[in-house]
Amino acid sequence: MAGGDDRKNFALEPYEVKSMKQLRLFAAVCAALLAVAAPAAGLEKPKYIFLFIGDGMGAPQVSLAAEFCGKPQLFDGFETVGLTATRSLNSYITDSAAAGTALASGSKTNSGMVGRAPDGTPLPSYVIAAREKGRKVGVVTSVSLDHATPAAFYANVPSRSNYYDIAVQMGRSGIDYLAGGGLLRPAGKKKDRPDAYRLAEENGYTVVRTVDAFDALKRGAGKTIVISPEPNRTASLPYAIDRRDGVPTLAALTARGIELLDNPNGFFLMVEGGMIDWACHANDAATAVAETLAFRDAVAEAVRFADAHPDETLIIVTADHETGGLTLGQRTLPYGSRYGLLKAQKVSFQAFSDELRELKKRDVLTPERMRRLVTERFGLRFDGTGPLVLADEEKNELDQALEASLHPSAESKLRCGGYEPLAVAATRILAAKAGIGWTTYAHTALPVMTFARGVNAELFSNYYDNTHIAELIRAML
Amino acid sequence: MAGGDDRKNFALEPYEVKSMKQLRLFAAVCAALLAVAAPAAGLEKPKYIFLFIGDGMGAPQVSLAAEFCGKPQLFDGFETVGLTATRSLNSYITDSAAAGTALASGSKTNSGMVGRAPDGTPLPSYVIAAREKGRKVGVVTSVSLDHATPAAFYANVPSRSNYYDIAVQMGRSGIDYLAGGGLLRPAGKKKDRPDAYRLAEENGYTVVRTVDAFDALKRGAGKTIVISPEPNRTASLPYAIDRRDGVPTLAALTARGIELLDNPNGFFLMVEGGMIDWACHANDAATAVAETLAFRDAVAEAVRFADAHPDETLIIVTADHETGGLTLGQRTLPYGSRYGLLKAQKVSFQAFSDELRELKKRDVLTPERMRRLVTERFGLRFDGTGPLVLADEEKNELDQALEASLHPSAESKLRCGGYEPLAVAATRILAAKAGIGWTTYAHTALPVMTFARGVNAELFSNYYDNTHIAELIRAML
Repeated sequence: MAGGDDRKNFALEPYEVKSMKQLRLFAAVCAALLAVAAPAAGLEKPKYIFLFIGDGMGAPQVSLAAEFCGKPQLFDGFETVGLTATRSLNSYITDSAAAGTALASGSKTNSGMVGRAPDGTPLPSYVIAAREKGRKVGVVTSVSLDHATPAAFYANVPSRSNYYDIAVQMGRSGIDYLAGGGLLRPAGKKKDRPDAYRLAEENGYTVVRTVDAFDALKRGAGKTIVISPEPNRTASLPYAIDRRDGVPTLAALTARGIELLDNPNGFFLMVEGGMIDWACHANDAATAVAETLAFRDAVAEAVRFADAHPDETLIIVTADHETGGLTLGQRTLPYGSRYGLLKAQKVSFQAFSDELRELKKRDVLTPERMRRLVTERFGLRFDGTGPLVLADEEKNELDQALEASLHPSAESKLRCGGYEPLAVAATRILAAKAGIGWTTYAHTALPVMTFARGVNAELFSNYYDNTHIAELIRAML
Repeated sequence: MAGGDDRKNFALEPYEVKSMKQLRLFAAVCAALLAVAAPAAGLEKPKYIFLFIGDGMGAPQVSLAAEFCGKPQLFDGFETVGLTATRSLNSYITDSAAAGTALASGSKTNSGMVGRAPDGTPLPSYVIAAREKGRKVGVVTSVSLDHATPAAFYANVPSRSNYYDIAVQMGRSGIDYLAGGGLLRPAGKKKDRPDAYRLAEENGYTVVRTVDAFDALKRGAGKTIVISPEPNRTASLPYAIDRRDGVPTLAALTARGIELLDNPNGFFLMVEGGMIDWACHANDAATAVAETLAFRDAVAEAVRFADAHPDETLIIVTADHETGGLTLGQRTLPYGSRYGLLKAQKVSFQAFSDELRELKKRDVLTPERMRRLVTERFGLRFDGTGPLVLADEEKNELDQALEASLHPSAESKLRCGGYEPLAVAATRILAAKAGIGWTTYAHTALPVMTFARGVNAELFSNYYDNTHIAELIRAML
């Protein structure tokens, strides 16, 4: 064994190391000591912990967005990268409810369940536990606050579609900062229940519904719920690709959360990029990239905070699952990648679908109109030269999609996963030209990437189950 | 700084650690010392180093094969898992030549080039360097020994299709053990050059062409080239799914390599599972799984050796790129995974294509014959109940494929990537029923998984470029 004198040599004059064997011995002793002593003294506990969840953001999504920006890595300065398995208790391909529950509680459950085991036992979130111990905590999402992923951090319900119950539990959660698009069913399914926002206010929350009130939020504001100043059908933020000035971004909600939560005892903040998933369900590559970059911008807010608190902060960026079966290679463009072409798309599949619905209502969606729109919104051209000019086969595909849009059949609905056929056709043609493939409107079982930087980041390397992330966070809180 | 007494406490009575802060300080000092001293004293050098390359084996392929076996991990006991970026110098989607060169030399080059930079400069392989310094080295593959991946470990040619030049360089390489299917062009493109096997024999190699001679190989055999006892058009081993008893497996070639290379000074052995890639090019999931499992069996031979030499062995398992745009989710089976269905397939796409070619030559490939064959070879049924019964749409797809097979058009050839249309249709229908998607007949840019176990395994965690693997191996040799 290395004696006291040997160690002195190492400590004071490292270049006097005489042999590799000597060094290995020393390293082995250090490692053994740490292994023995660390659990005894307890895991190091960073004061500030961030958990970012890119919903549906698999490795292909991360790689696509990075390459779109011409960068080798999407998330800069994350020294640790691991791989995370996502399966739920009853399905190799998980949903967000089971994956969110795993990430929030450390326990597996069946797909569709939020914070409960299959037998109904509550699976408590470490966020609630930390809040009860006096730690400030926040939950931010780009979708509705009662959606499966954010809900998993504060609610315990048998089904993710129990939106009203989730909303009520949110109002009782005591979470210091809740920010997102809004609530899907604030008055219940039949709109006959007490308003969930009012219940939250009765529990001491301030509900912020305007840009001015959001801008006026200051440290010491007390328990706060921020919702979008422009409510929409999905109670979400607008898609980044469609956003108008004035509506807060996910990054703005994150930055304000950091400001409100910051205090000498530290905080935990979960931020979900929820609409990466939605864009990928619709197989809309340009919208998925824009959402992934909006998510990266939110991560950048945490990085800025960590740079000011380097020895006290841990940032984890992970995903709950991959969505869409996105691939970085297309049959029609072997070995080719032209991701820059995605810039030609100006609106999300959703905005395009809404626009088409209006035109159909007015009975003015003619073939000519369709073609003009496809060119204006997606850059796809019906004549000329260049990579965005449509092949005859693609023109036929659009004509068939128009027919399916005007006269939907059970078969066409199935083929388009329930999405607007013209939106599916236009986004898929653009993706194919860019060298991108999709294989499903649902999720896949591909392991996801987990990035970490700061205190204890190294614990997130290698390959592990999503429950492992929750176990580590719980131990650190 | 931690004084001498503090360190003494840690060293002798670990449970006397007084505070987390104290421990952190100690850990920081240890880490700093190691960082300073390790390069000075040199990286630890394992005596036995294995590099396994699953050609085309991306994360989806690894996950599919593991789940097919009902196991959470395909490669048991690999404590470290990292992610590896694969791009070539001139393409986001690499080919095997550029990726092989990166893994063998540590330098990027253009796709298509083997062991040479774009300007023609040779990019020397660490295998040749190690051989010249007296280390025993081996190169094993399931495909031909002059194929891009194995070639990158001993040859320097401007193009991967310079098969004859590669074969000649192989015969001069001095590599102690070379094993694979054979050589594609042993007498050159025009069959007018001196036989490459004979040239190798003139350089001291024994060429082993029979099962008996292979079985008789013993330690001390000298420089050896093993080729398949059953030569075929592709100079490869047979697909695992088609293999008859008697033909050596990739695992057998690996085990024999270990036996012949084993010596007190250690060895380096590269083993390529080359036909995972071929099966994925053809979008044949069942054959891809069988090849991945054959590759895993080869890895198991190295693990067995490592278990006998635990403190002296490093095993790395990586891939050069993903092939096929394989995904673990299918539009027609949302959230479903039925990988067990792949067991219904009895032959590779290649064997099936060969069979069809014979039938077409004899003009006996009738619709009835096609249907019987599809049922016999792929388990797909035209009536009855169960997951393998064909839907009307799928029956139509097979009828159209038969038409395209009997009367190929430029369009049908393009759509099938040059593969036999009925093989493409049958394997793709089976994959879809199993919940598997494909998006290309070429490669994709998805990062690959890298697994490591043994000495220095921890250096292969996190996310890095494929050149990093070569740099580490070179430093350890």
